[in-house]
Amino acid sequence: MTLDELVRAIRPVDAAATAAARERHTKLAKPPGSLGRLEELGAQLAGIASRCPPPVPTAPTVVVAAGDHGVHARGVSDWPQSVTSAMVSTVAAGGAAVNAIAGAVGATVTVVDVGTLATGDTPPGVRDRRIRAGTRDLTTEPALTVSEATAAIEAGAEVAADLVASGTDLLVTGEVGIANTTASACLIVALTDADPEAVTGRGANLDDTRTSLKVDAIKTALSRHGADCDPLGVLASLGGLEHGALAGVVLAGAAARVPVVVDGVISGAAALAAVALCPDAAGYLIPGHESAEPGGRALSDRLERPPLIALGLRLGEGTGALLAVPLVRSAAAVLTDMATLDSVVGS
Amino acid sequence: MTLDELVRAIRPVDAAATAAARERHTKLAKPPGSLGRLEELGAQLAGIASRCPPPVPTAPTVVVAAGDHGVHARGVSDWPQSVTSAMVSTVAAGGAAVNAIAGAVGATVTVVDVGTLATGDTPPGVRDRRIRAGTRDLTTEPALTVSEATAAIEAGAEVAADLVASGTDLLVTGEVGIANTTASACLIVALTDADPEAVTGRGANLDDTRTSLKVDAIKTALSRHGADCDPLGVLASLGGLEHGALAGVVLAGAAARVPVVVDGVISGAAALAAVALCPDAAGYLIPGHESAEPGGRALSDRLERPPLIALGLRLGEGTGALLAVPLVRSAAAVLTDMATLDSVVGS
Repeated sequence: MTLDELVRAIRPVDAAATAAARERHTKLAKPPGSLGRLEELGAQLAGIASRCPPPVPTAPTVVVAAGDHGVHARGVSDWPQSVTSAMVSTVAAGGAAVNAIAGAVGATVTVVDVGTLATGDTPPGVRDRRIRAGTRDLTTEPALTVSEATAAIEAGAEVAADLVASGTDLLVTGEVGIANTTASACLIVALTDADPEAVTGRGANLDDTRTSLKVDAIKTALSRHGADCDPLGVLASLGGLEHGALAGVVLAGAAARVPVVVDGVISGAAALAAVALCPDAAGYLIPGHESAEPGGRALSDRLERPPLIALGLRLGEGTGALLAVPLVRSAAAVLTDMATLDSVVGS
Repeated sequence: MTLDELVRAIRPVDAAATAAARERHTKLAKPPGSLGRLEELGAQLAGIASRCPPPVPTAPTVVVAAGDHGVHARGVSDWPQSVTSAMVSTVAAGGAAVNAIAGAVGATVTVVDVGTLATGDTPPGVRDRRIRAGTRDLTTEPALTVSEATAAIEAGAEVAADLVASGTDLLVTGEVGIANTTASACLIVALTDADPEAVTGRGANLDDTRTSLKVDAIKTALSRHGADCDPLGVLASLGGLEHGALAGVVLAGAAARVPVVVDGVISGAAALAAVALCPDAAGYLIPGHESAEPGGRALSDRLERPPLIALGLRLGEGTGALLAVPLVRSAAAVLTDMATLDSVVGS
């Protein structure tokens, strides 16, 4: 599907099914409200599936989108850019944190290269959807053209639609990309009017000096970008190829009425772009965890839906969102499997 | 094992294995510290197993201990006492919240009646280990004799040891017992010197009037109990049979070097009693979730180990602790399955 077709395919979540789930929660064999936020999560899942009780997800897949970033030249990361491709290979080989946690929660990992600097053969297990070899330096020029950003969105959406067609019933966003917290902070500032300092953190372990280089790069980029707030223009100007791909995953999930669990600051920035492109996608999003990176709350604030897990993770790859997958499964299962109070104690 | 034998069988967790896991975390393919609290949880699991990396739990079991409470006569609950036995049957039949969530996270449920008021045949699937038909009214006399409390501990420990012998490698505590938040608050006050109002909540939906009846009952009980702080004496005087049984589960888990994920305020009170009986048991405990019930933090404060999940649950049965099971599995899996940074990017 083209981006336009994708956006047109998205329907709002079903308010009647959400209401039916809330009503059902008052009748189950427990004090009303005693499952806390799991109850509202179940109601959201019902709205997404347009069905109460909602289906219990059995085949979650985390999409790990990878890309490199021209802004790396500004000294915004401690790590060389080659680490992006090395981590893509590690994820494909099953040795990254995302693989360990996916195994522990019963999810599958799909890794998509939408724009690393890797040369040579694509490692086995990596979906090669490269749009270009890394973005341009967003401090001096738009990181992507609008047509490159569109291609990244459509690539991510196509991967997600393909996964859904093969049985995936819960999508999880993840990424790999050295310097991508810088691009994420730019996107968050441009999409939410946040203060640059307030959304800039230490990424993968920056010290104070390098963090101030990072804040400078973000301010320079935003000043270069100007006041354009067309979502696609913002994504192209300030985003990464993995942000585009993950925005596509969000849109394809929403179009297929599949819930999307969103990881930390990078995934959150991509999801903000997706919601800007199509506000009805918001109902399909589940903020998975609260990243230790300060911009990590931007999406949950925008959705007014707090993250499910808050354990101080700041690794990315989809690790935090994966930890929330069993909570999603549990929220659906209580609506499906529990007896009613009447059947237990008599009416 | 007798209680004395159980306490003597418990060894401190292995500090060398804990240190080895922390060291290993600095060498895995991720920025050091980027898995947040999952890293320290993994180190705790290594200390418990005396092995780094620690084994990844594959067979978690939640032990749901059930009992009734004489203090119910003081009007401290909205629910009739018959609900305890009705819920025991519901858990055994698979229709309670604990069953739904156990299914969603891959855990097994074992329900043990250590002292409900149920008459007639034990429902299929319930382990009948009844010590007596409910406790005495703790506002007017000790809820249990010391020998009844000891028998409850030993019953819970025997069930847990039996489960471990059959392959359970992660224990989770849960309970059912109308009025048991009142007994829990009494235990927490007596074991931690907390203020009665500060640990008393609405249990299963009390209104203000009934909550003040509950605070009165707790104060009367503590005044009747006096200053005795012998752990077994406190448990007998103020606890429930399910508290005793869960203290036994904790002690048996620690004796077998199996981690114990602790649920909310009732399980937390039982675990506090277990730690008072045997301080070395503390290292084996993982506070699973932060109950919405105010006394729910007493255990994690005592252990200086914050709960893993905070979603406002206040249902009991072990539901909150079960939600933390995939986090425990994930914490072990990253130590076991991840590649080292050297192998990814070269040394």
